[in-house]
Amino acid sequence: MLKRKIRHDYSLGIDLGGTKIAAGLCEGAKIIRKVVLPTSASTGFEGVVDVMAQACRNAMADVNEKDVSGIGVGAAGQVDSKTGVVLYAPNLKWKNAPLGEALSMALKMPVRVVNDVRAATLAEWKFGAGKGFSCFANIFLGTGIGSGFVMNGALLEGVTNSAGEIGHICLDPEGPVCGCGHKGCLEAFSSGRGIETEVKRRLARGEGSSIRDLVADDLKKVSALVIGKAAREGDSMAIKVLRESGAWLGLALANVHTMLNPQIIILGGGLMALKEFFLPEARVVLHRHVLPVADRGNELLVEAHFATEAALIGSAALFS
Amino acid sequence: MLKRKIRHDYSLGIDLGGTKIAAGLCEGAKIIRKVVLPTSASTGFEGVVDVMAQACRNAMADVNEKDVSGIGVGAAGQVDSKTGVVLYAPNLKWKNAPLGEALSMALKMPVRVVNDVRAATLAEWKFGAGKGFSCFANIFLGTGIGSGFVMNGALLEGVTNSAGEIGHICLDPEGPVCGCGHKGCLEAFSSGRGIETEVKRRLARGEGSSIRDLVADDLKKVSALVIGKAAREGDSMAIKVLRESGAWLGLALANVHTMLNPQIIILGGGLMALKEFFLPEARVVLHRHVLPVADRGNELLVEAHFATEAALIGSAALFS
Repeated sequence: MLKRKIRHDYSLGIDLGGTKIAAGLCEGAKIIRKVVLPTSASTGFEGVVDVMAQACRNAMADVNEKDVSGIGVGAAGQVDSKTGVVLYAPNLKWKNAPLGEALSMALKMPVRVVNDVRAATLAEWKFGAGKGFSCFANIFLGTGIGSGFVMNGALLEGVTNSAGEIGHICLDPEGPVCGCGHKGCLEAFSSGRGIETEVKRRLARGEGSSIRDLVADDLKKVSALVIGKAAREGDSMAIKVLRESGAWLGLALANVHTMLNPQIIILGGGLMALKEFFLPEARVVLHRHVLPVADRGNELLVEAHFATEAALIGSAALFS
Repeated sequence: MLKRKIRHDYSLGIDLGGTKIAAGLCEGAKIIRKVVLPTSASTGFEGVVDVMAQACRNAMADVNEKDVSGIGVGAAGQVDSKTGVVLYAPNLKWKNAPLGEALSMALKMPVRVVNDVRAATLAEWKFGAGKGFSCFANIFLGTGIGSGFVMNGALLEGVTNSAGEIGHICLDPEGPVCGCGHKGCLEAFSSGRGIETEVKRRLARGEGSSIRDLVADDLKKVSALVIGKAAREGDSMAIKVLRESGAWLGLALANVHTMLNPQIIILGGGLMALKEFFLPEARVVLHRHVLPVADRGNELLVEAHFATEAALIGSAALFS
């Protein structure tokens, strides 16, 4: 008698952030059922794992668990994907948290854990803008800036799982202070947080801008969203700050390109909603600094295929 | 009857530069017999290939050719290692030169061609400072600056074979002009040529230094060697320029580290003869900018095992 082949139609992906958990039952890049639950560092490691398990059970409610091959988790932080341990996740206040083991125990299913930006890179690689490429960089532009590199057909993790921390390459040793404490990191210039800080700095020293009215003189309300709104209404300071952030981004992209010579560089993340204001300048600076022999012109920069669900889909893809 | 196993005890490595060809019969990292012949771009592609073939025959004179498994070539320039074509070698004035094919025809032996810095990286990986590591950067500090990256146990070449061009990452968009025409490349600050240019600039504007006497007021004679001599004699300008070059080098190394998170960074090349003047500052800046979670302290920077023969030994290792 032939042994019946085990079928696994589905896999489960989890995007684990500092304030919410999104779990999705996936069939390839298609999300069949998605469950979002709030979470908080204050519930502790066990509390968060409980909520994750609950989200998984809800997402799998309509299918037979045997048809789910496993659970992939994309976690914001430094992750050892070999052991499933979250080494450091500042948002959740975790250090050396054995997430893979704990979640696998709770659900009696295989679990793999990766960094969320790397999970998003997997999604682009398998199903999105990186499909068919064996050498590319996937840059995530949001509140912070991260990236995943696929080189020689493999995702780079680095010896202590911090490869791709492009947000913290130094572009100007005398530049503004970054959240990491160092000076002049890319993130201090070109991330959502960096742009907000620069606008606040300019407003605080009395520079004129319609942003002041948009936030009713309350600098705490300055956000990338507000800055984008002002730029769309023609505010010259908002436009200038965004354009300068694009120039620094272009310089960083040129350096990524010079070091790694990828086929494409994918740009994604929430900040891309403001791309009209920073991307043209980024392109100019990128092509000004890129090695002529390696410049692939307009084909080099590509937009991400997935928006907010890349980490979830890529995590699920660890088991598809 | 059992088929006799073919024995290949030796392989041949060639270091192909702009002014000389060094061919060596190797047994692992050991050079059994080395032949150096002058060459020149003026003899054309065929002329250079003839000299290379001659050097190979001389190097193999004492052994049976059947015991030589193949010929590896490390060429200064942009090389497609899959086809053996030298895409661009400015020193030899070659473009799209089918070196692998031509040398293989001339000697009736298998030939592989790689970029010389990548060949040197292979030597360090197989037999030198990179032995046992699967993730490292090998930086070559000479007249120019190049590097080879081994990531996930594979040498990175990049999509157009220009991965590792660390000499041309931009550290300061307003910095000095580099040989490549761009501004503020690492090479413009920290290579032998960059250091010489900076010293000449300072001498030309009248800055005091004992270098002026060492070159008898002839600025054309300023070289890294002379600058090193002046530094050893305590010349403050020479020391200052070397120290600053080290600071820029440290910044570049920090960025390599932040992007790739290697186990070690190997430093080699002729400029290391002056390390006492630039390496301490490079270390300080490196550790100032490196991500704390990934900083491996004093274990991170390692000196190359091989000096001038790395490219030759690494080329031979393509067939060992």
